[in-house]
Amino acid sequence: MVDLVLSSIERSVLTLTFNRPDRLNAWTDEMGRRYFDRLAEAEKNPEVRVIVVTGAGRGFCAGADFRTLTALRDGSYAGQPDPRPTTFPTTIRKPIIAAVNGACAGLGMVHALLCDLVFTAADAKWTTAFARRGLIAEYGMSWILPRLAGQARAMDLLLSGRVFTGAEAYELGLAGRSVPGERLMEETLAYAHELATHSSPASMAVIKRQIWGDGQRSLEASEAAATHLMAESFTRPDFAEGVASFVERRAPGFPPL
Amino acid sequence: MVDLVLSSIERSVLTLTFNRPDRLNAWTDEMGRRYFDRLAEAEKNPEVRVIVVTGAGRGFCAGADFRTLTALRDGSYAGQPDPRPTTFPTTIRKPIIAAVNGACAGLGMVHALLCDLVFTAADAKWTTAFARRGLIAEYGMSWILPRLAGQARAMDLLLSGRVFTGAEAYELGLAGRSVPGERLMEETLAYAHELATHSSPASMAVIKRQIWGDGQRSLEASEAAATHLMAESFTRPDFAEGVASFVERRAPGFPPL
Amino acid sequence: MVDLVLSSIERSVLTLTFNRPDRLNAWTDEMGRRYFDRLAEAEKNPEVRVIVVTGAGRGFCAGADFRTLTALRDGSYAGQPDPRPTTFPTTIRKPIIAAVNGACAGLGMVHALLCDLVFTAADAKWTTAFARRGLIAEYGMSWILPRLAGQARAMDLLLSGRVFTGAEAYELGLAGRSVPGERLMEETLAYAHELATHSSPASMAVIKRQIWGDGQRSLEASEAAATHLMAESFTRPDFAEGVASFVERRAPGFPPL
Repeated sequence: MVDLVLSSIERSVLTLTFNRPDRLNAWTDEMGRRYFDRLAEAEKNPEVRVIVVTGAGRGFCAGADFRTLTALRDGSYAGQPDPRPTTFPTTIRKPIIAAVNGACAGLGMVHALLCDLVFTAADAKWTTAFARRGLIAEYGMSWILPRLAGQARAMDLLLSGRVFTGAEAYELGLAGRSVPGERLMEETLAYAHELATHSSPASMAVIKRQIWGDGQRSLEASEAAATHLMAESFTRPDFAEGVASFVERRAPGFPPL
Repeated sequence: MVDLVLSSIERSVLTLTFNRPDRLNAWTDEMGRRYFDRLAEAEKNPEVRVIVVTGAGRGFCAGADFRTLTALRDGSYAGQPDPRPTTFPTTIRKPIIAAVNGACAGLGMVHALLCDLVFTAADAKWTTAFARRGLIAEYGMSWILPRLAGQARAMDLLLSGRVFTGAEAYELGLAGRSVPGERLMEETLAYAHELATHSSPASMAVIKRQIWGDGQRSLEASEAAATHLMAESFTRPDFAEGVASFVERRAPGFPPL
Repeated sequence: MVDLVLSSIERSVLTLTFNRPDRLNAWTDEMGRRYFDRLAEAEKNPEVRVIVVTGAGRGFCAGADFRTLTALRDGSYAGQPDPRPTTFPTTIRKPIIAAVNGACAGLGMVHALLCDLVFTAADAKWTTAFARRGLIAEYGMSWILPRLAGQARAMDLLLSGRVFTGAEAYELGLAGRSVPGERLMEETLAYAHELATHSSPASMAVIKRQIWGDGQRSLEASEAAATHLMAESFTRPDFAEGVASFVERRAPGFPPL
């Protein structure tokens, strides 16, 4: 049987690869369950500090699989969606970087944007697609898109469902970097290794949660929570090592999460 | 009597035009009531799929009419503002695109930004104006501006009341597109017709509400609401038509809202 | 004894200067207390309309003082942090502009971003630093950074702790302007004098509070609050003067706050 999400690890960076290349990695319940299982394992594995997600072949993920859509349309859908919410990746305590190598549409775009960071091939084709299929802004897309691109850009992309390139995704703030496709994995992995080497795993876990969670708090509540989290950080070996390595002008040796 | 808001329809796109050109379309209670009435009619009219709002003559809307301001200053104001809130356009279930053809100031800028999308002439003069008149960030401007441009840009525009061009409005994220003035209506209408042809009216109604409403929810609440809205979308003819037209590689024929 | 925060006033603009130049103005409890006292005085002083904050020597503020960090690591810290919250500057009823002349790191970056506006030297070195020291997003940084730069850019800067320039800080939306270092004070003061001359102090006080406070409200709640604040503004002499000076095409003479 084909493994729907491939996995490989190199120097603390785990790469997960959606693996339905003949379907541009279109999303199925099975592939989703495999992806989330891989993430849950990665969270527990002390060897993993950073996770990269990409797609096999020419696409990243072209959206919900056509057979699923057809069955939903017919009323014949009998799938078993994962009980974990679509936002599950935002709860993983390690940073996840999407490397968008090609087609990134609908549900595939949701999953790119639910990663903590996105690197994209400049010529990758992106689209929300929903409005052109009679669908709505699915799974929190109406929440995340305005926070990345501002409300007006989000409205444009969602109302029109137009296709745009990775280069534009970068300009709009959806992606942190846009690079020529042939350099995508090299640059993404270089950044991932930078995080794995220089950033404290404990710090990254807390910061990731702060950013996903501080959207609805007031500034005052956010500051109060940060004061508590800061006090905790003073007691961790990561803080001692972070200060010592800075003073001694050497790379830090942070403990795993 | 002069009609304060002109109306014309062409292939499912309704164009409304503020019509006090000798006053740069400065806002009066009467013009505001006429505008909102026109929007309410457009929402009910099955021929209308997208609404474009622009100004007659050289301006879009130069702000509150000077006579209103003077009467407010004297304490002699006896107007009857519309009971509908200023945010009424955000509740209309069809997309509204502002085509900012010229001066866009104060209350006029509020009304441009309460449209779902903004196209602007590159040389149009924009200004919040409030701080220079002893006024405050009126009618939700302090809410929408940071969501479009980020907090620092919003603070600059509101504290200084400085004049900026349409080209800068685009750079700042206030406008989705900035074009030479002589091409403004052509490009705005082309985009509007694109929405009217390729995007499902039902999808646009739901997505518009999601974006205006998801600002204060948590990601989790937003995802939960989207799951419910998605289930509803599966039952609409728009979904069947959206999938069928995609598979058959033809333009969709979505039903009116 | 050295004054830890220098103060000078010129034509209604107060300049405060962090003054530990041999330590790149690293933050100590004493310097923080002095800074907040200066702000509290400035709020009460009718001569002051706008506040500029900068650093003596080559840096703006390089973060928490090393001795504080070491003591925190050892458990020997016996400082007395100011009882006022770190967000205190956001409650001052006059606009505060940071002029970031050089190194702006960690807690120093927090204090730059808690100013209402930031002008930066293009070659100033910025960094969040926290993740590289085993720390977390301190004092509301996880709240303000996504509101300035969008969530993806914020995640990059906080997870990586990488160094970036003032020029990039401007591109990301953290700073309102980036200028060659030798012109920084000149351009910042020119903008500050523009606010002091043309913007109503009462308007700026209300607008500043609206922007810092409207982040968590709904659009409808924000509009309702603005209606109340607008009615108050009609009764102030600033409104009469704002309209009169506009009509008479002359500079306004607004009263102090």
